Amino acid sequence: MVYTDLNPPSRTLLGPGPTMAHPRVLRSMATPLLGYIDPEFHKIMDEVQELLRFVFQTSNNLTLPISGTGSAGMEASLCNFIEPGDHVVVGVNGFFGGRIAEIASRYGAEVSCIEKSWGQVFSPNEIESALSKKPTKMLALVHAETSTGALQPMDGIGEIAHRHDALLLLDTVTSLSGVPLKIDEWNVDIAYSASQKCLSCPPGMAPITISDRAVEIIRQRKSKVANWYLDLSLIEKYWSDSRQYHHTVPINLIYALREGLRMVQEEGLEARHSRHRSMAELLWSGLESLGFELHVTKEHRLPMLTTPVLYSKIDDAAIRNKLLDDYNIEIAGGFGPLAGKVWRIGLMGHSSRRENVVLLLAALGDLID
Amino acid sequence: MVYTDLNPPSRTLLGPGPTMAHPRVLRSMATPLLGYIDPEFHKIMDEVQELLRFVFQTSNNLTLPISGTGSAGMEASLCNFIEPGDHVVVGVNGFFGGRIAEIASRYGAEVSCIEKSWGQVFSPNEIESALSKKPTKMLALVHAETSTGALQPMDGIGEIAHRHDALLLLDTVTSLSGVPLKIDEWNVDIAYSASQKCLSCPPGMAPITISDRAVEIIRQRKSKVANWYLDLSLIEKYWSDSRQYHHTVPINLIYALREGLRMVQEEGLEARHSRHRSMAELLWSGLESLGFELHVTKEHRLPMLTTPVLYSKIDDAAIRNKLLDDYNIEIAGGFGPLAGKVWRIGLMGHSSRRENVVLLLAALGDLID
Repeated sequence: MVYTDLNPPSRTLLGPGPTMAHPRVLRSMATPLLGYIDPEFHKIMDEVQELLRFVFQTSNNLTLPISGTGSAGMEASLCNFIEPGDHVVVGVNGFFGGRIAEIASRYGAEVSCIEKSWGQVFSPNEIESALSKKPTKMLALVHAETSTGALQPMDGIGEIAHRHDALLLLDTVTSLSGVPLKIDEWNVDIAYSASQKCLSCPPGMAPITISDRAVEIIRQRKSKVANWYLDLSLIEKYWSDSRQYHHTVPINLIYALREGLRMVQEEGLEARHSRHRSMAELLWSGLESLGFELHVTKEHRLPMLTTPVLYSKIDDAAIRNKLLDDYNIEIAGGFGPLAGKVWRIGLMGHSSRRENVVLLLAALGDLID
Repeated sequence: MVYTDLNPPSRTLLGPGPTMAHPRVLRSMATPLLGYIDPEFHKIMDEVQELLRFVFQTSNNLTLPISGTGSAGMEASLCNFIEPGDHVVVGVNGFFGGRIAEIASRYGAEVSCIEKSWGQVFSPNEIESALSKKPTKMLALVHAETSTGALQPMDGIGEIAHRHDALLLLDTVTSLSGVPLKIDEWNVDIAYSASQKCLSCPPGMAPITISDRAVEIIRQRKSKVANWYLDLSLIEKYWSDSRQYHHTVPINLIYALREGLRMVQEEGLEARHSRHRSMAELLWSGLESLGFELHVTKEHRLPMLTTPVLYSKIDDAAIRNKLLDDYNIEIAGGFGPLAGKVWRIGLMGHSSRRENVVLLLAALGDLID
């Protein structure tokens, strides 16, 4: 077999992720490697941790990127805290809540799901009621459901969880740096994210942050964490002054993450949130002009992931294929109960730009008329 | 805080990994992303699988890169096959054998370690004897021990394992593409490797290959794999025609892996092995001229990782620090029982070049005299 030079088509990525990486982020990955024991690399690790604390809005010491994709971050957020028999309450209003429940059960948790239809969110009363039924070790919620386009309001949720002596775990895969996210102010104990959404880095790293309260749970475990690769008590030794070897971290992805985080800091969190919001509003009004209703009510709608409802005239797969083949634009179809009913259009990080919104709307205008 | 442009020093990486990545590999990572559902990306995945089968010398269908570092490959090779109570025999003659035993025990295996001092290898008789004691589900060996510099001979080992109805698991992290490795001919059932050793790609991917016999063990499991992220029955669905979503794979690391594998194919496996061998011999004779003995007997010595014994005149840390600070050369110290007793000098992949050997020997000559 002859393998040609790598020459993929140039896509405009407007799906649920990965998003487009900024040229600065891409170039940073081509930087020659340092070794993982190099003091110069350790400085870069320190900077990445500082920048992660900034974007998570936390002073949590245990804040670092897991060497895996967002799903590895999800699993790390569960396996380090759950011991067999622990009761975990999971809010399931989309695909990723369901995944949390599945992984928690693999570690022996007794899982209670509170369910809502895909696209809805939970009220504080509903959460209070779920936690009142029996002692709970952890409450897990998805902040920004990439499968539905809904944003879970967080007002008062941390207080409710702590009043019931439960850890609060928040999936921030799609929300980090795209909408306000305040780990400390909201009393979130465990949060994980992913590099390839609003941070606009390539996939392969999962930022995670753990409160001191949750660290104490790790310290008091009776059993070893079943998962060795994601065992935070081992990983944190490499990410602290002792630099004790656990695994060889993905050097170039850490270069990329540093550059992506640095760009968040340069832009400023508020400005970045505003950009995501205004680009989303441009998309929403354009979609409405094309006849689409939007699946999620405006109050709970994610700016970075929009789910227009497909009406009778729309041939789901045919239009998505034409967007990809003729316009080099990627958007995604619906998942699970929303398959064939909505599209998922992402405007995250470097993908969230006026030119991309205008291009997509123009292309859809061509294809639908 | 102000974060400057990324500007790490240019190191010559001659430690146990990561190795230097070829400029072609580095450049490939700067290629703009495709989405993970893009048919053009699926073609790249198919090519990576074909190339991995070539470097592993196997026709195993289940051959793919795990989205994590070599240690994730190790864990995937254990957690998918072990169920609580299974008996596993592990050859421990270095650090990584010990790690296999630790991870296997986390999944409930009853582990029997056969031990040798660090730098020695196992004979077929020793393995036969260990397997004769009781029924064994899996025999795990390390092909190239990066902590010691020893190469485990594989003649007849596969036959012994299968005669005792045990799966043969082989750690090929440091051996893949550096020395002959014949998965099918040797009857190896499960092998994992890492991208950042002789393949000379950045860390973050763990190639793995599984025989049909071992796949059957996965199919017949009674319990779910405790580890969700590394569950091969889910991962394989994305790496086969159904392309069913499991996690977002690290697109750019897959670009890099494809380029690194393509370069192995261009060079040819035999030529690549010869290069590693001849550069190692150049290093060995140079080290001997500088007064070093080599820890591993020539018969079992790895070409890609050499462990010179530190004699009285050598100040371990002082010389390694000067190599790094004054010459930009990274080598590594010894581990565990070999700490302070040997260095670990790697000549892997793109690091295995005459100019690097000559430079290192000249620098050591400066520093020791």
